Amino acid sequence: MFLAKVVGKVVSTQKDPKFIGSKLLIVKKIDENEQILGEPIVAIDTVGAGISETVIVVTGSGARYIDTGDKVVPADASIMGIVDSIEWNTGY
Amino acid sequence: MFLAKVVGKVVSTQKDPKFIGSKLLIVKKIDENEQILGEPIVAIDTVGAGISETVIVVTGSGARYIDTGDKVVPADASIMGIVDSIEWNTGY
Amino acid sequence: MFLAKVVGKVVSTQKDPKFIGSKLLIVKKIDENEQILGEPIVAIDTVGAGISETVIVVTGSGARYIDTGDKVVPADASIMGIVDSIEWNTGY
Amino acid sequence: MFLAKVVGKVVSTQKDPKFIGSKLLIVKKIDENEQILGEPIVAIDTVGAGISETVIVVTGSGARYIDTGDKVVPADASIMGIVDSIEWNTGY
Amino acid sequence: MFLAKVVGKVVSTQKDPKFIGSKLLIVKKIDENEQILGEPIVAIDTVGAGISETVIVVTGSGARYIDTGDKVVPADASIMGIVDSIEWNTGY
Repeated sequence: MFLAKVVGKVVSTQKDPKFIGSKLLIVKKIDENEQILGEPIVAIDTVGAGISETVIVVTGSGARYIDTGDKVVPADASIMGIVDSIEWNTGY
Repeated sequence: MFLAKVVGKVVSTQKDPKFIGSKLLIVKKIDENEQILGEPIVAIDTVGAGISETVIVVTGSGARYIDTGDKVVPADASIMGIVDSIEWNTGY
Repeated sequence: MFLAKVVGKVVSTQKDPKFIGSKLLIVKKIDENEQILGEPIVAIDTVGAGISETVIVVTGSGARYIDTGDKVVPADASIMGIVDSIEWNTGY
Repeated sequence: MFLAKVVGKVVSTQKDPKFIGSKLLIVKKIDENEQILGEPIVAIDTVGAGISETVIVVTGSGARYIDTGDKVVPADASIMGIVDSIEWNTGY
Repeated sequence: MFLAKVVGKVVSTQKDPKFIGSKLLIVKKIDENEQILGEPIVAIDTVGAGISETVIVVTGSGARYIDTGDKVVPADASIMGIVDSIEWNTGY
C-alpha cells in the first residue's frame, strides 16, 4: 500500500457497468515530508475520504477485495483507510 | 487506474485467439495539466473510446473483469470509462 | 500491453518443468518513433514471432491465459500478437 | 520480494473492515549498502517486525497468502520475514 | 520475466511459515551487456541456481506457480531457469 493525498475527483458517465456507483477519487503518493510524488492515480473510495485527506491506497488485485457491498468492482487501486497519524523513525 | 489520452490504434492479425474481436487502442498517461506522460500502453476498449479522448484505464488482473460479453480477454489494460470532467484540488 | 521489438532469444535447459517446450524471446519496449526503451524482458511466444518483429506483449497474470495448448505456463510476459500496422494520432 | 528497513508505522481508524486488527508498518527498500531507496511503502506485519529492523517484503497477490490467521487481509505488501544475515557476492 | 545475475543470499529465521524451507537468493537485473541494473530483488530458487549465475526470474502471481513440491510458496519472484545461452540481435 502507499500513503497518498486526495487531489481530485473524476466523473465518467460512459463506463464499464461494474463501475456504476463507484466514487472515483484522484490521489498522489506522498513521502515522509508529505511532499506529493509522481503521477495522479485514480482510486475507488469506500471509506468516505475527501479532498486533501491523507489516505492509504491498496493496488493490484487486492483493490478488488475491498468491501464494496454485494458486488466486485474490478478496480486496481482502492482507498482502504484514512490516516489518523503516522510515526516516522527519523534515525536513518 | 490512471487518466490517459487515446493516441493511436494498433492492428494485429496474427494473434492469440482470445484477443480476436478486441479493439486495441494505444493510450498515454496524462497529468493534472493534461500533459502526456511516459510510454505508450496498449489497452482494449469496450466503452467506445476514440482518438484524443480522455479515458480511465484499469491495469493488471482487473483489466480482465471488464465487460467483454461472454468471453474473458486476457488483457492487462482496459479502458473502463470515458472522462466527463475532472475536478482538481489545486491547493497543494 | 505494450509495443515491443523482438531483440533476442534465450536458451535454458535447467528450468522449471512447466516451462519445458516454451519458446523464450527477449523483447524491448518501443515508443511511437520505434525507438527501443528500457530493459530487456523475457516473454514466451505462442504466435510465431521472430527476431526484429514488432509485437504486442501482455504482462502479469494475463500472460498465463494466452493459448499454450493443454497446459498453463506460469509466465509473467507473453507475446499476444504480431503488429500489422499502427496508426498514431500525432496531434498532441 | 525486496529487502527493506522499517521506518515508521501508521494508524488508521476509519478503514476497510478487512484490515481491522492488521499492524501497518512503513518500510523503505534498501540496497546492498543498506542505503534507503525510494518511496515509503505500507506493509502489514505478521512476523513481529519492529522499527529499524531489516525485513523481506512480498508484494502483489502473494501478500494476501501470508499467514493472517483465519481471515484474508487484502494487502498488496506484507513483511514475510525478518533478516538474520545477508551474504553479498561483491565480485560484480 | 527478466534476465538476472545471482548476487547474494539471505537468511531469515523469523518468517511466515509458508516460506520455511525456501531458498532465498538475491538477484539483480542485467542488460544485453550483462551490466547489473537497479535494485536487489529477493527470489526463491527451485532450480539449483548459485552465486554469479545468470538466471531467468518470473515475477508476480506466476512466481507462485513454480514447482515447489506439494505446497504453494507465496513468493512474488522465483528463479524459473538457469541461462545456457542468449542470442542478441544487435541490428537495432
